[in-house]
Amino acid sequence: MIIVIQCKDQIGLVAAVSGVLAQEQLNIISLREHVDPSENRFFMRIEVSGEVPKETLQRKLGSLLPADTVIAINPRPDKKIVVLVTREYHCLSDILVRHHFRTLGASVQHVIGNYPVLGDICRRFEIPFSHISHEEIDKEVFEQRILDVLLRDQPDYIVLAKFMRILSPAFIRAFSARIINIHHSFLPAFVGANPYRQAFERGVKLIGATAHFVTDQLDEGPIIAQQIIPVNHSFTAADMMKAGKEIETSVLAKALRLVFDDRVLVYKNKTVVFE
Amino acid sequence: MIIVIQCKDQIGLVAAVSGVLAQEQLNIISLREHVDPSENRFFMRIEVSGEVPKETLQRKLGSLLPADTVIAINPRPDKKIVVLVTREYHCLSDILVRHHFRTLGASVQHVIGNYPVLGDICRRFEIPFSHISHEEIDKEVFEQRILDVLLRDQPDYIVLAKFMRILSPAFIRAFSARIINIHHSFLPAFVGANPYRQAFERGVKLIGATAHFVTDQLDEGPIIAQQIIPVNHSFTAADMMKAGKEIETSVLAKALRLVFDDRVLVYKNKTVVFE
Amino acid sequence: MIIVIQCKDQIGLVAAVSGVLAQEQLNIISLREHVDPSENRFFMRIEVSGEVPKETLQRKLGSLLPADTVIAINPRPDKKIVVLVTREYHCLSDILVRHHFRTLGASVQHVIGNYPVLGDICRRFEIPFSHISHEEIDKEVFEQRILDVLLRDQPDYIVLAKFMRILSPAFIRAFSARIINIHHSFLPAFVGANPYRQAFERGVKLIGATAHFVTDQLDEGPIIAQQIIPVNHSFTAADMMKAGKEIETSVLAKALRLVFDDRVLVYKNKTVVFE
Amino acid sequence: MIIVIQCKDQIGLVAAVSGVLAQEQLNIISLREHVDPSENRFFMRIEVSGEVPKETLQRKLGSLLPADTVIAINPRPDKKIVVLVTREYHCLSDILVRHHFRTLGASVQHVIGNYPVLGDICRRFEIPFSHISHEEIDKEVFEQRILDVLLRDQPDYIVLAKFMRILSPAFIRAFSARIINIHHSFLPAFVGANPYRQAFERGVKLIGATAHFVTDQLDEGPIIAQQIIPVNHSFTAADMMKAGKEIETSVLAKALRLVFDDRVLVYKNKTVVFE
Repeated sequence: MIIVIQCKDQIGLVAAVSGVLAQEQLNIISLREHVDPSENRFFMRIEVSGEVPKETLQRKLGSLLPADTVIAINPRPDKKIVVLVTREYHCLSDILVRHHFRTLGASVQHVIGNYPVLGDICRRFEIPFSHISHEEIDKEVFEQRILDVLLRDQPDYIVLAKFMRILSPAFIRAFSARIINIHHSFLPAFVGANPYRQAFERGVKLIGATAHFVTDQLDEGPIIAQQIIPVNHSFTAADMMKAGKEIETSVLAKALRLVFDDRVLVYKNKTVVFE
Repeated sequence: MIIVIQCKDQIGLVAAVSGVLAQEQLNIISLREHVDPSENRFFMRIEVSGEVPKETLQRKLGSLLPADTVIAINPRPDKKIVVLVTREYHCLSDILVRHHFRTLGASVQHVIGNYPVLGDICRRFEIPFSHISHEEIDKEVFEQRILDVLLRDQPDYIVLAKFMRILSPAFIRAFSARIINIHHSFLPAFVGANPYRQAFERGVKLIGATAHFVTDQLDEGPIIAQQIIPVNHSFTAADMMKAGKEIETSVLAKALRLVFDDRVLVYKNKTVVFE
Repeated sequence: MIIVIQCKDQIGLVAAVSGVLAQEQLNIISLREHVDPSENRFFMRIEVSGEVPKETLQRKLGSLLPADTVIAINPRPDKKIVVLVTREYHCLSDILVRHHFRTLGASVQHVIGNYPVLGDICRRFEIPFSHISHEEIDKEVFEQRILDVLLRDQPDYIVLAKFMRILSPAFIRAFSARIINIHHSFLPAFVGANPYRQAFERGVKLIGATAHFVTDQLDEGPIIAQQIIPVNHSFTAADMMKAGKEIETSVLAKALRLVFDDRVLVYKNKTVVFE
Repeated sequence: MIIVIQCKDQIGLVAAVSGVLAQEQLNIISLREHVDPSENRFFMRIEVSGEVPKETLQRKLGSLLPADTVIAINPRPDKKIVVLVTREYHCLSDILVRHHFRTLGASVQHVIGNYPVLGDICRRFEIPFSHISHEEIDKEVFEQRILDVLLRDQPDYIVLAKFMRILSPAFIRAFSARIINIHHSFLPAFVGANPYRQAFERGVKLIGATAHFVTDQLDEGPIIAQQIIPVNHSFTAADMMKAGKEIETSVLAKALRLVFDDRVLVYKNKTVVFE
């Protein structure tokens, strides 16, 4: 079983939780705990061997922990996701391949593209694809069409795998800490459009990518994972973009693995990642 | 306070320890726990805020934990070390500089060199240096002279900072899990002499360095830290050695920081490193 | 145009080659040159803008360069490859996706598996798959059946994408410097079978992967690319294998990109890689 | 000998240069060439074996190359530098140690600190140290005092090894492409003051450092080298700063090695680095 807990910090939390687990004859395989003193916030992830009814544990722990506690016991092992894409294939293909061979840790229910081009690769893997164009319609209507799919499929997470449209604050707030984006730069460098062109102009020696939860502050949401690769003077902006795609794929894959494995806890604008 | 515990695994260990801490009104800042199921072994490192007599804690925890428990409460914050060197300056200088500016986390009591050449840099930092030559004497006598220094200085750790002599099993056993070596390769590749020549001949694209505890099995002791750097066809064996020195310095510094901060637990031939 | 040259070193080689190019009004975009003094060997890769008949250039350069010169002018931009696999999907899928979206720099003509399991993913991408079992037949017969496919398809390169059979020296010699393998360790560490189990037993802090040309010395061929990722005490051997698959995919992709872009020159047991 | 050339690009440059070298019976050990098509600019670095009077080569090459050519033949192998510091010891100590053991590739003539605290470490290495305070005097006077030292010592490069004052545009222009700074962030992220606090607030998962030439645009000069290290939620801003110092030391050391080895060519706001 996996138990993830987040609450206000106070003395005795670990003793309270581990006391209940010992009572229930559960053995702790792995325990990660973090206190953020600046926020007075307690975060914990525990893996135990042994089984006990989830409701029993929830009740016993709930009675001992602070009122604001967020607790997840044995969260769904195989999350459901919907993926939003535009035209680039690299992140989506990686997700589809892992889904297909059951190593994603999640099940892809649906792919939505604002262009039709990635429908073909979805069909090859028998994943439903909906082309929902943003053209010649209001943003509100565009988002409502996406919402219709989401309301039907009820995904745990929405993955923006190079989805190049900006979602409205209202849309984002409806899925708080459940929308994961891959940003094509080492945030907070090169916020905004065309980061590879910016990186080229600046003559940087490393480029990066950032996977983060989406909030209504563009490119400002809680960061899950970041990676970089070296570049040099011989790289054109196009070469940087090509190299960047490799790192985007890799960072998004890592972030998804961490999230789907319940290793990422979010508080305000930061994450605690129990790698 | 820092508390480091290692014992046979059983149900209820975390509850027992954290129960005592809560009783004593100690707040857990950071807790790292690991169970090695293949060895049925429990490892834990806790940082708490608040103070309580070390003896009280020792007694209370001791009464609750298995008989084989190894426990360290508030280990010496500023360890004492003796450094053994031969002729290369890079690792020693790094240690001396950090010692000088009090960021090493340890105090260098003495440097022993089997050549006199590094005496000068020690004198510049006012660190006692003893030239103990291995030439024209039996290994036993050589080691006895080193032991004389160690017995007087009683260091917590002995650091082999590019010490190019092989110590006898008897010597090593006298300082079990207390001798730290920097090996000039990415172990277990290139065991033995002249690893950069071996790496050059093999045409590798990465070279590395390994910091490890020394056991009587040459180059086989528990690994603390490893790092690599890229090399390419333009590197001669000498260039690889030069690049290797950078990574040796960096890996040894990292390993010492982890050990001096009580983040490295040793069991059999492996380490648990709570980074 | 791309020009790749390898020959015995002597004074005036760069002048001779660049003189011909200037005569033909070709502008050098990028020139990489390396001399291996221990082998007295000259390596060069040039990208030029402008066009001139390949035969003219071949003739003019050939008349100026040493007798042993190996020269490739404008090598086939889209190489043909055959991929050999066993049961693991990760490297093959990556190759198939890049092929499908025309970013591999090569065309996958055929996939051969000694188990049938990866046939399905090939069919999804409309790539011919042949199941050639090694069971209950002589190695010679097994290899002959593979050779039949290769002789028909005439690939430029054979990619062993986690092909877990050892090919005979005769087979390998027939495709000298044309068979590329991904080895699941940071060679020369953990040569042979089950490197992740070996890495786990040794308690290493980094694991790696190596892409190399295959020679009749097992795991000893010229290395093209190597990468590593950090691991720690919490990794089981299975976790290391899982992490290793990510790096295997990434290293093989990098090596193929370099080879298909004519950036890898082989001499004896080493490579010159003009990245 | 080392030859470094930069000029407007045109057909035949490599042929012209290598023709002269062949005529003079010089053998090319290593040649790196780069053309920046967007700037129509040619960059080359050549290492040759054999000797010929520098003036002969200069004259012969000069007569063949475009009027705007900047050419350096056998640049001073052991550069002279002056180091400017404030209060942090890590970069300076690393430079002093390398200088002391003659592996810096440059000779430290003088260290100037706007606080007196680093005088002690300089004296230990017998390097002249001047305390030039910025307090209670005009910036102009402060800079004039620094200039007095520079005019006397005539260094090839000025290294800002954690010098926390901003130099005036007039000062900077007087030493164009000769002032090297280490910036405590992965530029262009976290421009300006207190980047570690900014990084902490943003919750980044990597922090970096950037070595660059100083121009009158603060933090905007040509980048020479960049590196990063991973951080996580357990890092306070102070921990990030501590980790950052390691990477600052390492990046500055790398940048200095490249510059002192004549591998860095500057044009407008970018560098070509022939690593």
